[in-house]
Amino acid sequence: MTAQLYCFGESGNSYKAALTMALSGYDWTPRYVDFFGGETRTPEYRALNVMGEAPLLVDGDLVLSQSGAIQYHVVKATGRLGGAPGEEEEVMRWILWDNHKLSSQAGMTRFLMNFLPEEKRPKEVIPFMQGRLKAAYATLDAHLTGRDWIVGRDVTIADTACCGYLYYPEPYGFSRADWPHIDRWLDRLSALPGWKHPYDMMPGSPADRAKA
Amino acid sequence: MTAQLYCFGESGNSYKAALTMALSGYDWTPRYVDFFGGETRTPEYRALNVMGEAPLLVDGDLVLSQSGAIQYHVVKATGRLGGAPGEEEEVMRWILWDNHKLSSQAGMTRFLMNFLPEEKRPKEVIPFMQGRLKAAYATLDAHLTGRDWIVGRDVTIADTACCGYLYYPEPYGFSRADWPHIDRWLDRLSALPGWKHPYDMMPGSPADRAKA
Repeated sequence: MTAQLYCFGESGNSYKAALTMALSGYDWTPRYVDFFGGETRTPEYRALNVMGEAPLLVDGDLVLSQSGAIQYHVVKATGRLGGAPGEEEEVMRWILWDNHKLSSQAGMTRFLMNFLPEEKRPKEVIPFMQGRLKAAYATLDAHLTGRDWIVGRDVTIADTACCGYLYYPEPYGFSRADWPHIDRWLDRLSALPGWKHPYDMMPGSPADRAKA
Repeated sequence: MTAQLYCFGESGNSYKAALTMALSGYDWTPRYVDFFGGETRTPEYRALNVMGEAPLLVDGDLVLSQSGAIQYHVVKATGRLGGAPGEEEEVMRWILWDNHKLSSQAGMTRFLMNFLPEEKRPKEVIPFMQGRLKAAYATLDAHLTGRDWIVGRDVTIADTACCGYLYYPEPYGFSRADWPHIDRWLDRLSALPGWKHPYDMMPGSPADRAKA
């Protein structure tokens, strides 16, 4: 049976898992999570995932959450995107850095600036988080200087992790023009066969919700 | 040659690596990082670690940052704390959750409340982060209900990750009395042979800096 990825278009964490599956040829289908309607806070969803988050992979008996854990599951299943022998620790270090410093903070900042009503936005939190994110973009841009990919000579799950929130159009303080090495790396990634924009790869987008 | 862990007592992220080494019998020695004096921002430090963070493991030719990557390196070297066969994905999911939701946010909030001068503290950020952390404590406490350890029947690196900031005395909004299942789990961990408090395991503490 085809694996189901519980996901939604606005979720860059879901995109990390979906893009990894798409680029590696893993057999999957999206299952829409109504995050904005509160689905991840329901008892039914919490019974599947105590962390109450998307993405969530359901593949036969396996129920697995955390985008990075799903990425590693896909590497194990397909033998692709894990890096060359000897590169495993470097790949993991960038996955963890992304979870700690990049996607976590970018996802929250984008949410506060775009998906919360104006009057509910914590005004001081946004510039504070943007300052922390600027340090993260600077680290990634410096690392990508003179490199095609984050680790080694080919695309890995380190790349499909760090790009999680960087293709979205909603403003949250990230501009590709400010970071030329990140900009060219995002172009290389989006030129790969199987790449799609998050809103084309997963169901749900601000445009869909505006129509509803 | 004995491995060196670049670390400092106030760093819960360093503690995750140090405690993993201590409990597994990995041969290591601490190398003090003068974080508060700006060492992680120096060009020399950035040359070792583009991410500019502690901990950092230097073991022969290996230079590895990110606490979780160091934890996995120790599991591979010692064969300990990785979980039973079949538990690897569950261990990884909690390591990633900790990096994303618990230690990252707890570390930042504790820093803002205790290591920044009063007049520099972003007043709105602190309660905002405490709200997010409360959700993380609730997730961990719910998961630990009826369990001795985070994954399976024995201590793993999931435990030595999630406890990273939870033994510190400085106030940042976490009180063991509010979370009975976390409280008992922290007691089980601290009863293990080789456990030490972060300020006893690594050089540097607020008390040391007050003396200096």
